[in-house]
Amino acid sequence: MKNDITIAQEATILKINEIAAKIGLGEDDYDQYGKYKAKVDSNLLKRLEDKKDGKLILVTAITPTPAGEGKSTVSVGLTQALNRLGKNSIAALREPSLGPVFGIKGGATGGGHSQVIPMEDINLHFTGDLHAIGVAHNLISACLDNHIKQGNDLDIDVTKITWKRVMDMNDRTLRNIVVGMGGAPSGIPRQDSFQITVASEIMAALCLANSLADLKVRISKMVLGYTRGGALVRVGDLEIEGAVTALLKEAIKPNLVQTLENTPVFIHGGPFANIAHGCNSVMATKLALKLSDYTVTEAGFAADLGAEKFLDIKCRKAGITPNAVVIVATVRALKHHGGAKDLSVENLDALSAGLANLDKHIENMKKFNLPVVVAMNRFLTDTDAEFDLIRERCEEHGVPVALCDVWANGGAGGEELAQMVLVEIEKGEDNYTPLYELDLPVAEKIEKIAKEIYGADGVTFSAKAKKMLKTLEDFGYNNLPVCMSKTQKSISDNASLLGRPSGFTVNINELRLSAGAGFVVAMAGNIIDMPGLPKKPAASLIDIDDNGKISGLF
Amino acid sequence: MKNDITIAQEATILKINEIAAKIGLGEDDYDQYGKYKAKVDSNLLKRLEDKKDGKLILVTAITPTPAGEGKSTVSVGLTQALNRLGKNSIAALREPSLGPVFGIKGGATGGGHSQVIPMEDINLHFTGDLHAIGVAHNLISACLDNHIKQGNDLDIDVTKITWKRVMDMNDRTLRNIVVGMGGAPSGIPRQDSFQITVASEIMAALCLANSLADLKVRISKMVLGYTRGGALVRVGDLEIEGAVTALLKEAIKPNLVQTLENTPVFIHGGPFANIAHGCNSVMATKLALKLSDYTVTEAGFAADLGAEKFLDIKCRKAGITPNAVVIVATVRALKHHGGAKDLSVENLDALSAGLANLDKHIENMKKFNLPVVVAMNRFLTDTDAEFDLIRERCEEHGVPVALCDVWANGGAGGEELAQMVLVEIEKGEDNYTPLYELDLPVAEKIEKIAKEIYGADGVTFSAKAKKMLKTLEDFGYNNLPVCMSKTQKSISDNASLLGRPSGFTVNINELRLSAGAGFVVAMAGNIIDMPGLPKKPAASLIDIDDNGKISGLF
Repeated sequence: MKNDITIAQEATILKINEIAAKIGLGEDDYDQYGKYKAKVDSNLLKRLEDKKDGKLILVTAITPTPAGEGKSTVSVGLTQALNRLGKNSIAALREPSLGPVFGIKGGATGGGHSQVIPMEDINLHFTGDLHAIGVAHNLISACLDNHIKQGNDLDIDVTKITWKRVMDMNDRTLRNIVVGMGGAPSGIPRQDSFQITVASEIMAALCLANSLADLKVRISKMVLGYTRGGALVRVGDLEIEGAVTALLKEAIKPNLVQTLENTPVFIHGGPFANIAHGCNSVMATKLALKLSDYTVTEAGFAADLGAEKFLDIKCRKAGITPNAVVIVATVRALKHHGGAKDLSVENLDALSAGLANLDKHIENMKKFNLPVVVAMNRFLTDTDAEFDLIRERCEEHGVPVALCDVWANGGAGGEELAQMVLVEIEKGEDNYTPLYELDLPVAEKIEKIAKEIYGADGVTFSAKAKKMLKTLEDFGYNNLPVCMSKTQKSISDNASLLGRPSGFTVNINELRLSAGAGFVVAMAGNIIDMPGLPKKPAASLIDIDDNGKISGLF
Repeated sequence: MKNDITIAQEATILKINEIAAKIGLGEDDYDQYGKYKAKVDSNLLKRLEDKKDGKLILVTAITPTPAGEGKSTVSVGLTQALNRLGKNSIAALREPSLGPVFGIKGGATGGGHSQVIPMEDINLHFTGDLHAIGVAHNLISACLDNHIKQGNDLDIDVTKITWKRVMDMNDRTLRNIVVGMGGAPSGIPRQDSFQITVASEIMAALCLANSLADLKVRISKMVLGYTRGGALVRVGDLEIEGAVTALLKEAIKPNLVQTLENTPVFIHGGPFANIAHGCNSVMATKLALKLSDYTVTEAGFAADLGAEKFLDIKCRKAGITPNAVVIVATVRALKHHGGAKDLSVENLDALSAGLANLDKHIENMKKFNLPVVVAMNRFLTDTDAEFDLIRERCEEHGVPVALCDVWANGGAGGEELAQMVLVEIEKGEDNYTPLYELDLPVAEKIEKIAKEIYGADGVTFSAKAKKMLKTLEDFGYNNLPVCMSKTQKSISDNASLLGRPSGFTVNINELRLSAGAGFVVAMAGNIIDMPGLPKKPAASLIDIDDNGKISGLF
């Protein structure tokens, strides 16, 4: 069987100006980045203001196994399938982080015959967005420490700095560091930490911004820590929001690429799916809605985390609403939730038990008053009896279910799914309703998500979290939406509780304010925002020949 | 008077495909990065192998004032002037580092009416080369610390790691740090340091590489530290040279841009001019030689540092030789060397005394058997009497001298200089000879440079440096060229000795091995490889409007 990079390198790729022409873009509407990538003018959206939006399809998933259930692959396969059916469809997806490419995870551009290309470029540097975000973030860090060293006119408390540095690398050695050593010429010593660049609040803000001007306001509002008097210190206090935004001049422009079947894709923005909202940029999604009849987009992790944030944060802020939700399920993940150890053999009992996980995700999406379609993403070891069991369960929910074979067959393998999605959209029964109102206090928003989405009995707050609830109220941040940060391995906050957990309490140990992005992060458990590398990193498999052809990237 | 960014933004800029067509490039020879930047295929050089090289002009300078004497501006003005005279000329220049843009220095793309554009893009991210180098470098760091944490099979001595991390930012707080704190999950604690990205050995190696394959070999050879048994640890031992090189796939391609007068410029590579050789890439210089009749290139700092390294390191490694050397001098710098405090008033005595600095640089260039032309780079406060004094001195040396007004008048202000350079080249009297042979021991190479170029009485080596001389011999690195690292403010290693110092000894306190770049760094004095920010950083002046127009960048 061919691996992803071989399939991608064998594909017939069109020049990006042909893709741009397909969706009606003129040469002045975009900039080429090489022959196969382009950045679209950030003001195009304004020029298209009066154009009617197409339909929006959100792809989310059940609670995954550690290997993932192929949500990106299904998203790419679905947009390929819609185009095969003669529909004008664009996918709006997240851009991969470079660090994990060298660790275990590998690339993040779909798989098999449902990939976005050029996959090597998209996985390595792409059009430089993550580098721009990293340097913009670290400019703030450098100016912050410089301010302290140069007299600290703002009276910043060096023990209460919440702004970390970032690097787009899996580098656990930088999680806990001491900076500013070496005496007076090298600054003031303090504890510090690097997070991976996608965890930067600038990434989260860029993905929620509507324009450069909006982004500049968001950057200005970002909180860096506290003064010794207890006041907030913001980027605006350092008077560098202009310089930081200037560094993001190109990064804010949506990136245009294509699928293996030469259909258009925007890949733009990719914030962390736990301490941030985990969705691609609002600007790319809106642009896709203007330029196509069917926009396919995805949210991070499973539906309890990714879709909830997509619906309660992104949709609300952007003023967009999905017309249908696709939940990706796999036989092997459902068996995993049902207690099976060997996921490669038929196990109807485990599957039957594990379906409780799918039940909960379906019920959750219905709470937002949205039509749901289940996509069974086929793996080689799945059996017909297993598919039939899933079909039965979906029928009980009154939810259509399609077998999806997009990894092996590309768009052709997604036509059943595409047809069903079109039927659901045609019915026009979507009636998007957010889970909570913004004027609810932060603690109550968290309780509502925990009880209604996770199925918890209740929520406890640590002393630290309680103190922060008070701080948020004092500083007027009570009406921000909540961004839940918890394990992706369970619908609960306990990674070991599979299936459909019940009888548990969600424990919030910390709250963080992302004032620029515009949400409060509620952390249930210890979230690592700087991954590490395994004993044999993927980096040792990657190579390049003298013609620039890369191998070993997966 | 208009500032640089205003002049640059008012210029008539041509699309980069028009510039590419001018120098005979077809659309398959390059990739566009936006409308005004391109990266040229790294294999083009191979395809042009049989084409005859044009002439090479090196622009260097006298010992500068802290404000700099306009070497880049003269280089740009000279290539503009050559084109005005109907000659086919390309400039091959260094790319700016992003960090200093936010500090004091500002941009580095020439000035006034002799600039390379688009200046905002070139100064901020450009085509991503520095970001690629940074992440390639930090991948090595992450894999190194990961190797140690995962069992340390290579038995690396954590107290003897010489490989630092990098960031493209002026961030003094990262000069001296402790990493790996927080207990076992976060690695092994050790002292560490960040240097600015341009100081990375990867930058130095990329600028000296002839191809991707050559670069991969160089990366593999880079030394990271020592084992507990005293053996060298190299990147190749971690088996990641393929992945690191893959990250540099695009960065190795020369970048094509244009001057304000729409003449072609390659801007590619910009290593530190003290701990590295300070010249743009060999590949860009060679490409310019193939594609033009007159290539104008520059070297870092003054001639004692920059030109010496250009001639003894870059030319030797690349197999290229300059046909003429331009030494940029200014009235104000010469007065500074003559002891003047107020550089804006006529002071013939100080100028006369300061001319000793120019004398030495002229004599030095003649040691390489190269024709010299002096360019007097005009400032508003200079007087005719001052210019005449410089002319007299040059006449004594038998060296032509031209008044250069390229800042105010662009190429037209450089025509006298261009004419003189053409005359010198026409004579064909260049007979490039390196200062030293490679088989001389490292210590003797250093002595030769110190005595013959700096005018020192001799060289002392610290105990640490002596030990390293022995190590270099033991490991077979004695035949590498030497890269001198010392103050740029004096021809000596003592910043306070102006003019033409004599009666001094050069003190080498440290030697570093850059085995991948292919030289030994000899450090005279403490060189800061991570700059800091001033009390009011330039970042606080930079802004951007909603149309993406940047202001305050200088």
